[in-house]
Amino acid sequence: MELQILIIGYVAAFCSTFGLFPLALRVWRTGEVSQLPVGMVTVMFTGAVLWLVYGIFRADQVIIGANTISLLFIGYVGAIKIRSILKR
Amino acid sequence: MELQILIIGYVAAFCSTFGLFPLALRVWRTGEVSQLPVGMVTVMFTGAVLWLVYGIFRADQVIIGANTISLLFIGYVGAIKIRSILKR
Repeated sequence: MELQILIIGYVAAFCSTFGLFPLALRVWRTGEVSQLPVGMVTVMFTGAVLWLVYGIFRADQVIIGANTISLLFIGYVGAIKIRSILKR
Repeated sequence: MELQILIIGYVAAFCSTFGLFPLALRVWRTGEVSQLPVGMVTVMFTGAVLWLVYGIFRADQVIIGANTISLLFIGYVGAIKIRSILKR
């Protein structure tokens, strides 16, 4: 049973991080972040950090895994956003 | 300690569902879903359903709460998307 639950969790994690991949890819390709509100990026980043902390406290490998990947994508988008603000 | 962990989890949940609210609001206001790929909506919906199932198996109230709210938003956006496809 444990394995089935983990598989459900990992498929869930894949689906929810999957949505961030096209966003990060588009930012990477175009460098265009003007349509992404800085508040939204900040909230998404904060959310992923807190989920990661929560997952570590709960010793939940699915939450930890999902949010590590999310953080990579959001961190990248956030870095480009900060760069675009500093350049202005 | 348990309470602190729950608070971290709920703030995380708030941040990650928060991103869906402007999306749902925009769809509600404009009825415009043509820019949302049907595949993306499907994957997001599947992800929220699976996270909910995972949370129930783990008896994790934070995951259950976060994904119930997410499902409401994504379900709404998905319903409008399906309607727009059927209307075509």
